[in-house]
Amino acid sequence: MKRGIFHYQIGDTFDSFLFIKTASKGVASNGKPFLSFLLKDATGEIDAKLWEATPEDVDVFQQGELIKVTGDIVQFRNRPQLKIHTLRPVQQTDGVNASDFVEKAPVEKETLMERITEAIFEMENPNLQRITRQLIKQHQEELLTYPAAVRNHHEYVSGLAHHVVSMLNIAREMTSLYPEVNRDLLYAGIIVHDIGKVRELSNASSPSYTLEGKLLGHIPLMVEEIRKVADDLQIDAEEVTVLQHMVLSHHGKPEWGSSKRPLIREAELLHQIDMMDARLNMMNRALERVQPGQFTEKLFPLEQRSFYKPTFDEK
Amino acid sequence: MKRGIFHYQIGDTFDSFLFIKTASKGVASNGKPFLSFLLKDATGEIDAKLWEATPEDVDVFQQGELIKVTGDIVQFRNRPQLKIHTLRPVQQTDGVNASDFVEKAPVEKETLMERITEAIFEMENPNLQRITRQLIKQHQEELLTYPAAVRNHHEYVSGLAHHVVSMLNIAREMTSLYPEVNRDLLYAGIIVHDIGKVRELSNASSPSYTLEGKLLGHIPLMVEEIRKVADDLQIDAEEVTVLQHMVLSHHGKPEWGSSKRPLIREAELLHQIDMMDARLNMMNRALERVQPGQFTEKLFPLEQRSFYKPTFDEK
Amino acid sequence: MKRGIFHYQIGDTFDSFLFIKTASKGVASNGKPFLSFLLKDATGEIDAKLWEATPEDVDVFQQGELIKVTGDIVQFRNRPQLKIHTLRPVQQTDGVNASDFVEKAPVEKETLMERITEAIFEMENPNLQRITRQLIKQHQEELLTYPAAVRNHHEYVSGLAHHVVSMLNIAREMTSLYPEVNRDLLYAGIIVHDIGKVRELSNASSPSYTLEGKLLGHIPLMVEEIRKVADDLQIDAEEVTVLQHMVLSHHGKPEWGSSKRPLIREAELLHQIDMMDARLNMMNRALERVQPGQFTEKLFPLEQRSFYKPTFDEK
Amino acid sequence: MKRGIFHYQIGDTFDSFLFIKTASKGVASNGKPFLSFLLKDATGEIDAKLWEATPEDVDVFQQGELIKVTGDIVQFRNRPQLKIHTLRPVQQTDGVNASDFVEKAPVEKETLMERITEAIFEMENPNLQRITRQLIKQHQEELLTYPAAVRNHHEYVSGLAHHVVSMLNIAREMTSLYPEVNRDLLYAGIIVHDIGKVRELSNASSPSYTLEGKLLGHIPLMVEEIRKVADDLQIDAEEVTVLQHMVLSHHGKPEWGSSKRPLIREAELLHQIDMMDARLNMMNRALERVQPGQFTEKLFPLEQRSFYKPTFDEK
Amino acid sequence: MKRGIFHYQIGDTFDSFLFIKTASKGVASNGKPFLSFLLKDATGEIDAKLWEATPEDVDVFQQGELIKVTGDIVQFRNRPQLKIHTLRPVQQTDGVNASDFVEKAPVEKETLMERITEAIFEMENPNLQRITRQLIKQHQEELLTYPAAVRNHHEYVSGLAHHVVSMLNIAREMTSLYPEVNRDLLYAGIIVHDIGKVRELSNASSPSYTLEGKLLGHIPLMVEEIRKVADDLQIDAEEVTVLQHMVLSHHGKPEWGSSKRPLIREAELLHQIDMMDARLNMMNRALERVQPGQFTEKLFPLEQRSFYKPTFDEK
Amino acid sequence: MKRGIFHYQIGDTFDSFLFIKTASKGVASNGKPFLSFLLKDATGEIDAKLWEATPEDVDVFQQGELIKVTGDIVQFRNRPQLKIHTLRPVQQTDGVNASDFVEKAPVEKETLMERITEAIFEMENPNLQRITRQLIKQHQEELLTYPAAVRNHHEYVSGLAHHVVSMLNIAREMTSLYPEVNRDLLYAGIIVHDIGKVRELSNASSPSYTLEGKLLGHIPLMVEEIRKVADDLQIDAEEVTVLQHMVLSHHGKPEWGSSKRPLIREAELLHQIDMMDARLNMMNRALERVQPGQFTEKLFPLEQRSFYKPTFDEK
Repeated sequence: MKRGIFHYQIGDTFDSFLFIKTASKGVASNGKPFLSFLLKDATGEIDAKLWEATPEDVDVFQQGELIKVTGDIVQFRNRPQLKIHTLRPVQQTDGVNASDFVEKAPVEKETLMERITEAIFEMENPNLQRITRQLIKQHQEELLTYPAAVRNHHEYVSGLAHHVVSMLNIAREMTSLYPEVNRDLLYAGIIVHDIGKVRELSNASSPSYTLEGKLLGHIPLMVEEIRKVADDLQIDAEEVTVLQHMVLSHHGKPEWGSSKRPLIREAELLHQIDMMDARLNMMNRALERVQPGQFTEKLFPLEQRSFYKPTFDEK
Repeated sequence: MKRGIFHYQIGDTFDSFLFIKTASKGVASNGKPFLSFLLKDATGEIDAKLWEATPEDVDVFQQGELIKVTGDIVQFRNRPQLKIHTLRPVQQTDGVNASDFVEKAPVEKETLMERITEAIFEMENPNLQRITRQLIKQHQEELLTYPAAVRNHHEYVSGLAHHVVSMLNIAREMTSLYPEVNRDLLYAGIIVHDIGKVRELSNASSPSYTLEGKLLGHIPLMVEEIRKVADDLQIDAEEVTVLQHMVLSHHGKPEWGSSKRPLIREAELLHQIDMMDARLNMMNRALERVQPGQFTEKLFPLEQRSFYKPTFDEK
Repeated sequence: MKRGIFHYQIGDTFDSFLFIKTASKGVASNGKPFLSFLLKDATGEIDAKLWEATPEDVDVFQQGELIKVTGDIVQFRNRPQLKIHTLRPVQQTDGVNASDFVEKAPVEKETLMERITEAIFEMENPNLQRITRQLIKQHQEELLTYPAAVRNHHEYVSGLAHHVVSMLNIAREMTSLYPEVNRDLLYAGIIVHDIGKVRELSNASSPSYTLEGKLLGHIPLMVEEIRKVADDLQIDAEEVTVLQHMVLSHHGKPEWGSSKRPLIREAELLHQIDMMDARLNMMNRALERVQPGQFTEKLFPLEQRSFYKPTFDEK
Repeated sequence: MKRGIFHYQIGDTFDSFLFIKTASKGVASNGKPFLSFLLKDATGEIDAKLWEATPEDVDVFQQGELIKVTGDIVQFRNRPQLKIHTLRPVQQTDGVNASDFVEKAPVEKETLMERITEAIFEMENPNLQRITRQLIKQHQEELLTYPAAVRNHHEYVSGLAHHVVSMLNIAREMTSLYPEVNRDLLYAGIIVHDIGKVRELSNASSPSYTLEGKLLGHIPLMVEEIRKVADDLQIDAEEVTVLQHMVLSHHGKPEWGSSKRPLIREAELLHQIDMMDARLNMMNRALERVQPGQFTEKLFPLEQRSFYKPTFDEK
Repeated sequence: MKRGIFHYQIGDTFDSFLFIKTASKGVASNGKPFLSFLLKDATGEIDAKLWEATPEDVDVFQQGELIKVTGDIVQFRNRPQLKIHTLRPVQQTDGVNASDFVEKAPVEKETLMERITEAIFEMENPNLQRITRQLIKQHQEELLTYPAAVRNHHEYVSGLAHHVVSMLNIAREMTSLYPEVNRDLLYAGIIVHDIGKVRELSNASSPSYTLEGKLLGHIPLMVEEIRKVADDLQIDAEEVTVLQHMVLSHHGKPEWGSSKRPLIREAELLHQIDMMDARLNMMNRALERVQPGQFTEKLFPLEQRSFYKPTFDEK
Repeated sequence: MKRGIFHYQIGDTFDSFLFIKTASKGVASNGKPFLSFLLKDATGEIDAKLWEATPEDVDVFQQGELIKVTGDIVQFRNRPQLKIHTLRPVQQTDGVNASDFVEKAPVEKETLMERITEAIFEMENPNLQRITRQLIKQHQEELLTYPAAVRNHHEYVSGLAHHVVSMLNIAREMTSLYPEVNRDLLYAGIIVHDIGKVRELSNASSPSYTLEGKLLGHIPLMVEEIRKVADDLQIDAEEVTVLQHMVLSHHGKPEWGSSKRPLIREAELLHQIDMMDARLNMMNRALERVQPGQFTEKLFPLEQRSFYKPTFDEK
C-alpha cells in the first residue's frame, strides 16, 4: 500500500488493502443481492459495491474486517466509487494491521498531552486549575484518542485533543493581543468544553452515539461532571458556575444546542475560537483535495458552500 | 381592607393598606423628583405615582414596606394607576401583616403536599420513586412556597406546587385514557421538572434571578441534581438518564431552552401537559378580570393575544 | 392469513393475500419494465416489487385488486420490501373479502356514534346543540367512516370519529379539572372541527384530495357550512361566529393553516387537545412496532424525531 | 379653512376648524389631567394636546365633535403636534359641515361605480358575471363608501372602491399584454376580493373592527358569502370554488392570512396586482409630503422603509 | 421533424433528430455502463437513457452533438423519458442545423431591439438616457441573445431581451395609470437591471456560471459597470447613484440578493414588475402543457406550487 | 477637566466643559419648551436636559458647540442623565479646544499607518500588493481618521484604522498557526474591507450616512473601487475578482448585507476575524464600565445580551 485510497482518480485500477467501515446488503433493481461498503484506510474513504454477492459474501465481509480488494474506480453520482472485481479477507501472511487503516491527527498523542499539560500548568487561578486538571486526569485516555465529532471536523483518532490544542494556540495569541481577557478562564473552557464527547460517543475509532449522548448530549453531561468534580475537590466558588456556563454556552445559541448564549466575555471568545478552528479544519481538508482553479465539494456544516481555490494560490 | 386593589375601577378613591413591591425614583419632565411604585395586596397589583417626592419620602418608602395610602385611581396608557394623595408607613396599631399582602395559590400548602405524596406513593418503579422522593425531601419547603415563574403563569406563593399538582391531575386522567403511557415516568417527570426553579430564583415572595439562574438556568441545574441524588442513592440505571431527559426536554424545543426535543413519549406528554396547564392558568386569570363581551389585555407569553369572553358565557 | 403483514420480519417468506393500495410501472436500470406496489392488509402496509413484469401483469394488477402473493421480505433503503415470486388475482374460492384488508379504528362505529350522541345530549346551550346535531346528521355516514387524515395520524377507516371521541374524553376530564371552561363550546368545537375533511377527501378507504380540498381546504369549507346550517336553523347569535372561530383557529397559527390564532379560551384548548391526541396516536402506533431499548423510525409530522422506548417500560 | 392641516409647518399658528377623530384623557407627569386628540380635516391629521384640561373639557371634547381651534404647530418626537391655546365646539353660525372633514378618494363614487359596472358588463362567463353582480348589488352602498383598510393604504372614504378600480385598470392592461390570462376570472376576483371588509369593519368614516372581523376576518367572511350567493342563484359549478379560492389566496401566503397560496394563475396575478396598487398608494401619499432630496417617514407596512425622492424628480 | 419533442406522449415511438444538451456516464445497478442524456429541440427537452453503452458510444455522443434517435417514450418517476433503441451522429445529408434545435423567444431579435431603442428615445432625462444608451451599445449582441436565467423563467435564447421588453410594456401602462411615477427612471432601471447576466453567464445557448458570476453575481457586476460608464461619459450626478440603487435593490430583499431593499418608488416598482413578468412567464409555460382540469408539475421558484387550469378556461 | 464625564456617578455634581453632539427642542408635558442634549467629552457621552429653555437658549446651544455646564447627575430610565443648572458657550479665555472632546483610538495615527504599511510591504503577490497600496494611497487621510462605524464598535476617531490593525495582528498569528492560509490575500482583504465606509459616512468626527451610503452601502462602493483601481493599474487578473469577493462577502451572509457568502477560505477567515475583533471591542468597552460581580448594560449588536464580569476577575 504505497499510496492511500485518497490519491486514486476516476479510471484508476485498485489492488490493495482496505478496512470495512460499514457494510450493508441491498437488492439491485434487477432483483439480485449486492453489498454496499464504505471502505477506508488512513488517507480517506471510498464507497464500494460488490455486485451479485453470494450469501457467503454477506456473512464474511462485515464491518470491522480488513480486506484485500481489486477493482476499478468509477464515477457514481459525481463521486468516485470502487467497483469491486475480487475481494478476500486479509491473511496473517499479508502483514497488515488494523491500526494502520485508521485516520489519525497529524500530531502525536504525547505532543498533544504535553501542550495541554503546559496550559494547565500556566494557570494561576487555583480553582480553575484544579478542576481542569482533575477532569483531564479522569478522561485522559479517551481525550487523547476520541475524535472531536462523528463527522464534519476533526473526525479522526485524537481529533478531540488536536482540536483542543489548536484552540489553545489561538487562545495564547488572542490573550496576548487582548490583555483584558482572562487567560485562565479561557484555557479552562477550551480544555474541558468538549470532554462530554467521551460519554456522548461510544468509542474512539468507529464512534456512534450512546443512549445518554442521544437523550442528553455532551453539553449537559459535561455541566454535570464539572459540578461533581468540584464537589469532590470541595470547591464551592463562582468559578464552578462560570466554568459550567462556558461549557453550556459554547455552541453560541439555543438553536445550536446552547440553552444560554455566552454571557461572559471568555465564553463568547471560546465560541468564536471553536467555530474558527472547526471551520478552518473543514475547509483545509476539503481544499487539499482540489486543484487551484477548482471548487471543493459542498460542505454540509458550512451551509452547503463549495469553496474556490484561487489559481494564484500556489499552496 | 374589605375588598382588594384588584376590584377598584378608574375613578374610584382608594384609602387602605398596600405593600411596596418595587419603588424607583424619577425626574419628572418639569424637573422635579417623583416616586414610581408597584403596589400590591393579595388580590393584585397597581402602578402608583407620588409626585413631588421629598428626599425623605425617597428614604422611607422603599421596596418591602407596608404602607397606608389614599389617592385616586386614574387611567395612564390604558391601564389603571393610583395617583397618591397621602401615604405613611404602617404602624403597629394598624394591625396589618405583610403576609396578608402576598398572592397565594388558591389551594393550601398541606393539600398540595398531600397530593404530591400520594402520587409518589402510587409509583411502582422503585428507582423513579426513590429519586423523586429524595428530591422532594431536599427541597420540600421551597417547592411548597416558590412561584412557578417570576411572571406569566402561577406567579404567586406556592405557584410551583400548585402547577405541579394541576399537572398531576391531568396526568392521572391521561394515563387512564391512554394506558400505554408509563404513569410512573410521567408522574416523576411532572414532580421534578421545575424544581430547578428553587435555585434559579432568589426567594418565594419577591423572586429575582440568581447568578446560577442567569448563567445556567433551571433546566441544567435540575439535570445535574438528578444525577447527584441518583449517585447518593447508588442508583445506576436507565431511569436516571431517562428522567434527566424528561427535565432537559420539557420546554419542547431548542429555541425555548430544551437543547434536546422530547424523544420519549412521556417526555412529549410532559411538555404538552405543562403547556396546557400554564396556558389555562394565564387565560383564566386574565378572563376573570373582564366581562362577557370583552377582550382581555394582551397576554405576552401567548403571542400577545387578547382573548374574548363570549356574551353567552355565564361564568 | 393467520397473522398480518405487520408482523413479518426481514428474511421471512410470505404466502398470503394482500390488497393493492397503489401500483405503478417503472423501467429498471437494466431497461426492463417492473411493477412497484404498495400492498396492505388490516395490520399494515409493505412496499413490493415485481421485477420483469409482462404487459399482461401491468393490465391485471392494478390499484384496488385483491391478490394472492408469494415472496421474500428483503431490506431496501432501511425498510422492509416484499420481493414478489408469484402473484395472482384472488378467486372466489379463496374466500377472502376486500373489507378485511382495510385498517379500522380499534373501536366500533356504533360505540363511537354513541359517545358523540351522548356529548351532544349533555349540552345545555341550545344554539350550540342544534347546530352540532344538524351537522352530525348531515354527515353522519362519512364522519363514522372517514379517516382523520390521509397520513400521519388516525389514518384508518373511522379514524375521524375515533379522533373526535378521544378528544371528547380528554375534554370531559379537562372541564371537570378546570370548571371555568365552557364545556358546551368545547364539545361543539371538538365534534365539528374536522368534519370539513369529508369534503376535503374523496372517500373513506383510499382517500385523495378533492378539488375543493386542494383549493380551499377543510377549514374554510367547515366555516362556510356552520353558517349555512345556522341560517337553515334560523339561528343568528354569537354562538355561530364563535363556533366558526373554533374551527378556523384550531390549527393554532397561520403557518399551520389557521388565519386567526385561537382568541377564545376554548379555542386554545381545542387546539391543545387536538395536538395532544394526534401526537399520542402517532407515537403509540410507532412505539408498538419497536422493542424496549429501541428507537422508532423517524416520525415526519413530529419534526422527524425517533422516539425511544425505555428498557424499563414493560408495556 | 382656506388650506388644510396637511399644509401647516412646524412654527405655524393655526386658527380654524377640525374634527376630533380620537380623544383620550391622560395624567401629565406633573400630576395634572390633559387631553390628547387626533384631529383631522379632509387633507390630513395631526396629534394635538390640551394641557391642564378641566373636567368640563373632558366631557365636551369627545370623538366625533367638530371644533374651532387655535394653537401652535410644534415638534414632538420628530412629528408635528398642535399645542392648543383655545378650543370650542362648532356653532351653527360657523357654517361648517362634518362631511367636509373627512378624507375621500380623489375620484367620485359615481365614476367608481360606473367603472365597476362596465367591468362586470364585459364579462362573458355567465356564472362569474352573475355571482359578481349579485355581490355588488348586496353591498353596493358600503363598497362605495368604506375604506380599503383602517390604516396603511386607501384608508379614506371610498378607498375600497378606489382600490378596486385602480386594480381593474391594471388588470385591463395586463390581460391585453398577456392574452392567456382569463380576464373574466381576474375581474371577478378583483371586484369581490375585499368586499368582506364591509363586515370586518364597523362603518365607513371612522371604522373599527367588528367581532366577526376580529374572530374570522374578511377573507373567510367573503368565502362564505360567495357560496351563499351561488346557492341563491342556483349556480353549482367549478367557478364557485375557483372564485372562493381567488379570495382565500389573495394575501399570498399563510403568514399573511391566506391559508392556501394562490394555485391558479389569475389568483397569483390578483395577489400581485393587489400588492402593487396598495404599495403605490402608500408610497405616493408619503412622497407627496416631502421635497426632492428628502426621505419620507418610515412606512410601517413597507418594512419600515423610508423612501427617497430624487432631486432630479421634478414631480 | 414535423412536430417537436414537446408534443410526444408516454407510449409514443420517436424517430427524429435531437440536440445533446448534457451527457453523462453512469454505472447501472447491474454493474454495466449506460449514458444519461438531456436531449432537446426548439420545443422542449426530454431525459433519455442509452442502456449498455459501449466505450465508443461514450466517446461519440457528447454534449453539443446533433443526433438521429429512435426509441420509446416511457414513464420514469412521473416524468417522460426516452428509452433509446438506436442513435447516430447527424450526417451532412440529413440537412439539419444546430440552430434549429434551440428554444428562442417568441419575438424576433430585431423587434425586441426596436422596442428597447424606442423606450430609450422617449427618455427626457439626458443623464439616464446617455448611460442607458451606452450600456446597451456595449452589450447589444449579448443582450439580444442571452437568456434571462439558466432556468426558471425566460430561459431561452433572447430571453433576456424578451423579459426586458415585456417589462417595458407593463411599465408603459403603469406610468400612464400612475402619472407620479418617473417614467425615465423606471425605463432605465428595467433596461439595465439584468445586463450583468451577460457577465454572470458564459454564453447564450448553453449557459453556465462564470467565475465572476459565482463570486460576485450579476448585481454587483452591473453596479460597477454603471459607474464606469458614467465616468467615461463624464456624468457625475445623482442619477448615477440612483440608477445603481435601482439595480442593487431589484431583487427586493437581502435574502434574495439585494443588500439594500428598494428605497425609491421606481425601484420598488421595478422589483414588482420584474416579479410579475417572471411569474407569468413561468406559469404560462407550465400551464401550456396541461389540459383544463389538471394541475401543472411543481414549479420550484414558485414555492413548489402546482397550478390548476380551470375546466371553464377554454384557452 | 481633570476626569471625564465617563467617571461621574448618579448623585455627583458636574461643573466642567462638554461638547454638544446633538441638540433637540421638545415640549414638556406641562406645555413648556425644553432642550434635550447628547453631550460628550473624550471619555464618553451623557444625555442632558435643560428644562424651561428660552427661545434664546434654543438659538445658542446647537450641535457642535462647546459649552460650560453645571448640574446634577440624576437617574432617568435606568441611565444617568445630566440635569443642567447653568450653561454658557465656551469663551476664548476658557482655553479649551474642540479636538479635546472627541474620543480617539488608544493608538496614534502614525503607529497605525506604520503597521498597515508594514503589512503591505510583506506581501509577495504583486497584484494584491499594488491594488492595496493604491487604495490606501487614495484614502489614507480618511482611513486614519474615520470611525469603523457610527455606533456599536470602534465608533471613535481613527476607529477604522484601529480595527484594521487589530485584525492584521490576529491575521499574523492565524497565518502562522495555519500555514495553508494565503497571507497576502488575507492581509489585502483586511486592509480594504471597510474602506467603503469613508464614502458611506459623511466625516470622521460626527458621522452620518451619505446618500450613496444609504442607497448603496459601503460594500458595493468598495467592490466598484477595487475594479476601478485595478483598471487604472492595468491589472486584469483573478486577484481582482477574488479581492472584490473578499469585500463583498465579509458580512458573512445575505441577511447581514453580503449577497454572496464567503466562498474562499480567506474570505471566511476575514469574516470570522472581523466578527471576533468587533465583538471583543464592544465587550471590552462595556465591561470596563462595570465592577466585578456586575452585568453590563444590554449590548444591542450582541443580541441584547448583558455580560457578566466574574468576581474572581481582578482586571
